[in-house]
Amino acid sequence: MGQLEDKLSDLGESLPEPKKPVANYVGCKRSGDTLYVSGRVSAIRGEVGSELTVAEAQLAAKGALLDILAIVKDEIGDLDKIISVDKVVGFVRSAPSFTEQPIVIDGASDLLISIFGENGRHARTATGVAQLPFGAAVQLDMILRMAQE
Amino acid sequence: MGQLEDKLSDLGESLPEPKKPVANYVGCKRSGDTLYVSGRVSAIRGEVGSELTVAEAQLAAKGALLDILAIVKDEIGDLDKIISVDKVVGFVRSAPSFTEQPIVIDGASDLLISIFGENGRHARTATGVAQLPFGAAVQLDMILRMAQE
Amino acid sequence: MGQLEDKLSDLGESLPEPKKPVANYVGCKRSGDTLYVSGRVSAIRGEVGSELTVAEAQLAAKGALLDILAIVKDEIGDLDKIISVDKVVGFVRSAPSFTEQPIVIDGASDLLISIFGENGRHARTATGVAQLPFGAAVQLDMILRMAQE
Repeated sequence: MGQLEDKLSDLGESLPEPKKPVANYVGCKRSGDTLYVSGRVSAIRGEVGSELTVAEAQLAAKGALLDILAIVKDEIGDLDKIISVDKVVGFVRSAPSFTEQPIVIDGASDLLISIFGENGRHARTATGVAQLPFGAAVQLDMILRMAQE
Repeated sequence: MGQLEDKLSDLGESLPEPKKPVANYVGCKRSGDTLYVSGRVSAIRGEVGSELTVAEAQLAAKGALLDILAIVKDEIGDLDKIISVDKVVGFVRSAPSFTEQPIVIDGASDLLISIFGENGRHARTATGVAQLPFGAAVQLDMILRMAQE
Repeated sequence: MGQLEDKLSDLGESLPEPKKPVANYVGCKRSGDTLYVSGRVSAIRGEVGSELTVAEAQLAAKGALLDILAIVKDEIGDLDKIISVDKVVGFVRSAPSFTEQPIVIDGASDLLISIFGENGRHARTATGVAQLPFGAAVQLDMILRMAQE
């Protein structure tokens, strides 16, 4: 286990089994030092603001992040190769009047910063959508930067 | 015609006339070796899951991809200059209960991989939205990588 | 004041005070020569096509752009360090039948091109969503390129 996984473990979290893409794409794609991570939906389903509370939706965001980190580790071998979290996009399946998408996506951002430290501070866009694949509560994608080899 | 267009032709597809942007932006923008492609909506209009079936929406996604490839060729001269498809984002205009966005966007991803081979395998995010420009069924944007010159 | 701010001034515009992120992320993140700018919602609230007209929504998009430019200047010191606007993503909070998202986002694109000139011409995606943080009318994010130092 690398240093980042040690930090996850200290926080009481661990990586799940890496899930496979649900359709014809890859979990992440390296291009030079940039790693484009595919959108991953949360295992938690439901509309936020009606069927789910903000706290439940934050757990959904954290779960989607852990799934992403497991996929990234599976593809690059070691999360310690990541030197920066550049961008996070979070889509929140929102009830018509729900407008607290940024607080929901903090469920992922807080954990990113806890484990990556300063390198984990990222640009971010959190948006509300009416529907997501499988009726998921949250969908995340990311752009990461890797160390030069 | 380059090799990629030959493959398109073998598949019974061909590039349409390149369409112009509908507002004040460019069809794609090169930045170093990265090519950012503007969002392109499908010529097929309608809400997926109510007015359109999954199969019809997949055709919409394929059509939007062909429009994008025509625009990219028009701007860079030859599709063979593209060495990698890094990221695809697909927005599907979704009926409230429609959750099969990934299957819809496979209409574009399958063709990308057929013509670009391994280099066409891409990170992807497929999301549901309530409305798109012109009432289109699908909107695609992409990040491509070009060969260094 | 740099040259870009002079142009803004010539156009009768000026940078507002830079606003702070509303949650746990940074206003923009530099990665090599790429600057990822976080999504910023407009101060103007409301649903476009029902509560707001296209003209009002264009003002919302322009306002969000000025907020972004103020944040970027605050982080990098001088807007003249930006040598290219690579990509703009615009989310428009849209009434169910509203499909003129591209015209709305021109409220930002027109100003970008007025101040950055040819370097301001950008790839773009304009999409409709059912809800945005704080009930804002428009949300913008951007990818910019900086001069090598």
